Amino acid sequence: MELVYKGKTKDVYKLEDGNVLLTFKDDVTGEDGVFDPGANTVGLTIEGAGRSGLRMTKFFFEKLAEQQIPTHYIAADIERATMTVKPATVFGKGLEVICRFRAVGSFLRRYGAYCKEGQPLDAFVEVTIKDDDRNDPPITKEALAQLNILTEEEYAILEPMTKRISTVVKDELAAKGLELYDIKLEFGRDAEGNLMLIDEISGGNMRVYKDGTYISPLDLEKLVLS
Amino acid sequence: MELVYKGKTKDVYKLEDGNVLLTFKDDVTGEDGVFDPGANTVGLTIEGAGRSGLRMTKFFFEKLAEQQIPTHYIAADIERATMTVKPATVFGKGLEVICRFRAVGSFLRRYGAYCKEGQPLDAFVEVTIKDDDRNDPPITKEALAQLNILTEEEYAILEPMTKRISTVVKDELAAKGLELYDIKLEFGRDAEGNLMLIDEISGGNMRVYKDGTYISPLDLEKLVLS
Repeated sequence: MELVYKGKTKDVYKLEDGNVLLTFKDDVTGEDGVFDPGANTVGLTIEGAGRSGLRMTKFFFEKLAEQQIPTHYIAADIERATMTVKPATVFGKGLEVICRFRAVGSFLRRYGAYCKEGQPLDAFVEVTIKDDDRNDPPITKEALAQLNILTEEEYAILEPMTKRISTVVKDELAAKGLELYDIKLEFGRDAEGNLMLIDEISGGNMRVYKDGTYISPLDLEKLVLS
Repeated sequence: MELVYKGKTKDVYKLEDGNVLLTFKDDVTGEDGVFDPGANTVGLTIEGAGRSGLRMTKFFFEKLAEQQIPTHYIAADIERATMTVKPATVFGKGLEVICRFRAVGSFLRRYGAYCKEGQPLDAFVEVTIKDDDRNDPPITKEALAQLNILTEEEYAILEPMTKRISTVVKDELAAKGLELYDIKLEFGRDAEGNLMLIDEISGGNMRVYKDGTYISPLDLEKLVLS
């Protein structure tokens, strides 16, 4: 089993059958010892964080499979904290596709002159490029095409797919009295070049509130899967 | 004559006939005493800078009028460093619409992982919001609509109009052996709600090179109008 990539919160191995194995680590992103899913650096290690993220990911990817939404998910082994997925190629050096239901985080930091914190947004989709050195800048679909990262045709598939996936997650959370404020997804191309959801869907990818109070990723897993 | 706005490089007065008078000041934007059109603060005063910017603006607005491109321009008085324009309402608190022919400036700072300095771009249009406190963040057409700054229909007029204006400027410069790298425009709505170009077009709004060397705004005016 060949290690192909050591990530901040996951390692990636190539399997002999051509599939890929992701190992979920207990390292979480954050700053100054505080778990912050939006941060770019690994801040601390929380025992069980890897398995917790994997349980959430398994739960949501299986929900998406029921809806015939294409993802890279094949199977999860909670005990070993591993997930088997289809191989994917990412767009450029990786994109983050964000769906926003309320104005918080980087949207609020950028556009605070035109919105209030927590103001409802209409499943608003935006893309940022993964580039720690440049603070993950936002990018338009025209710039994605101009820089040969994603074609306009692919964007036209990506945007509604992001809204559809995010709405599935939002509805699952709403059924448990939880409100999704925003969620960050990653996409890739499968062997045939078709778009599919990749990476994970866990508390680390989203901001969820209950009665106006932010729910941390580990607490969220208990509320969703209990 | 009522002062309605004191800007960094221009003051704005309301005329009794309903039109607006802009006075071009000798203050230029920059940092540490160096003229930098991209800067957000007034860095220094250069005698004659106001008239120089006005001469360029008159030249380009008259070229645009020949092409029936709508602008706020009515007349210019070089001696007094004033320009009479139609009244306009801006989008939100003001937008900057940039047309890029080469990757430099904030585009390169944001997307340097995907492009080289000076790489050709295809009259690439992007919008930033005027917000000094937030460093003029870029914004997508979807976010402009979401925040009620500009409708998608208005954007569909704005984008080709930006390319058309920028190409007029590019061609004028090319005829003098100069190359336009990027240009920053401002638009507003006229009394009937139609889009028109406002503000100015001078060296302070663009990056121009000659044989690979950057030409400063004051030198540019001499080269263009000589």
